[in-house]
Amino acid sequence: MKIGILGTGMVGQTIATKLVELGHEVKMGSRIAKNEQAVEWTSRMGQNASHGTFADAAEFGEVLFNCTHGMNSLDALQAAGKLNFAGKVLIDVSNPLDFSKGFPPTLSVCNDDSLGEQIQRTFPEAKVVKTLNTVSAQVMINPSLLPGDHDLFMSGNNADAKGVVRMILEEWFGWKVVIDLGDITTARGAEQLLPLWARLAAIWKTGQFNFHVVRPA
Amino acid sequence: MKIGILGTGMVGQTIATKLVELGHEVKMGSRIAKNEQAVEWTSRMGQNASHGTFADAAEFGEVLFNCTHGMNSLDALQAAGKLNFAGKVLIDVSNPLDFSKGFPPTLSVCNDDSLGEQIQRTFPEAKVVKTLNTVSAQVMINPSLLPGDHDLFMSGNNADAKGVVRMILEEWFGWKVVIDLGDITTARGAEQLLPLWARLAAIWKTGQFNFHVVRPA
Repeated sequence: MKIGILGTGMVGQTIATKLVELGHEVKMGSRIAKNEQAVEWTSRMGQNASHGTFADAAEFGEVLFNCTHGMNSLDALQAAGKLNFAGKVLIDVSNPLDFSKGFPPTLSVCNDDSLGEQIQRTFPEAKVVKTLNTVSAQVMINPSLLPGDHDLFMSGNNADAKGVVRMILEEWFGWKVVIDLGDITTARGAEQLLPLWARLAAIWKTGQFNFHVVRPA
Repeated sequence: MKIGILGTGMVGQTIATKLVELGHEVKMGSRIAKNEQAVEWTSRMGQNASHGTFADAAEFGEVLFNCTHGMNSLDALQAAGKLNFAGKVLIDVSNPLDFSKGFPPTLSVCNDDSLGEQIQRTFPEAKVVKTLNTVSAQVMINPSLLPGDHDLFMSGNNADAKGVVRMILEEWFGWKVVIDLGDITTARGAEQLLPLWARLAAIWKTGQFNFHVVRPA
């Protein structure tokens, strides 16, 4: 499959690398066409890897991942061009974390709204699915780093899009438990998990953990 | 031990009942001295159970539980009288859930503040420890309702108070994993878990579940 990755940071590179390893064609998009990290990544990954602007990556991909920093996501997606999202599954991995006042971060949008909803409202042509935002980059593409069952959440308005995303998460990335929370407004809960996540990561000095919802046997 | 329970709802009754069963003297406090539920509870529980106003319960208890609805907690605690909290451990079980616009609820305070912090700021004489707010009343006092490991969070400024609370949670209520998140500002993360909790409860039509943080073996 052709996949566009918006963002060249740790999350974007980790997901893009996994997808190339799985045999997919991946274009990594950035604010500028020749982002240093994207150029280096492309030369390292070989023929199925390419890079370009946000618009190049969004046009290229049949499925898109938003891996930009949450504070910049709306600007980055605007730069990608609305028309490039039409009818496509847009997997929103970002979190609206504001570190401008240091640690702990606050959320730039929360409670009665979420970044997932803002993106869906701004790009009604896209099929936005929020997921993967509650785990570290390494756990996203390798859940077996952690023992036993642990869970991923998924939010979105389009059932078919969530079917595609479930396939990617389960078949490609190896997730065993993907909980469909409901429509895109449920992204609020998943994004508001981050303040707790950040405190736990600070205590344990690692992001290598995840939540499992325990229910009666 | 003498314990004061502020609030006569499901959470207050469940905790109060468990404490009487364990042999403690418990006074349940309400806005009025002869709250119907508290009167009924007292007559059912026998000699170690009593009831009265918020102030009566707060004066009586060596350790206090705030089990009022979060939207009313500050008013209820004011009614209990600041002097009655001086030097005491105040276990804050409440959540600032606003259902005035229906489901899903929003949080009346969150992100850069929390109800736990508001209570600690308003009653600096109290040793506030936020905990138990992330599970249903039945799970609070009987964690073995759920299989395997699952976790409780704890936030507070006073280490000795957290020691007392850990003893209550582990020895009296049977909790195996109590994670000390840090000072009372970490209550933000625990309270912001509620929007996700509420969505999961709506999907599964039960509050009988809890989170476990999975870490590498």
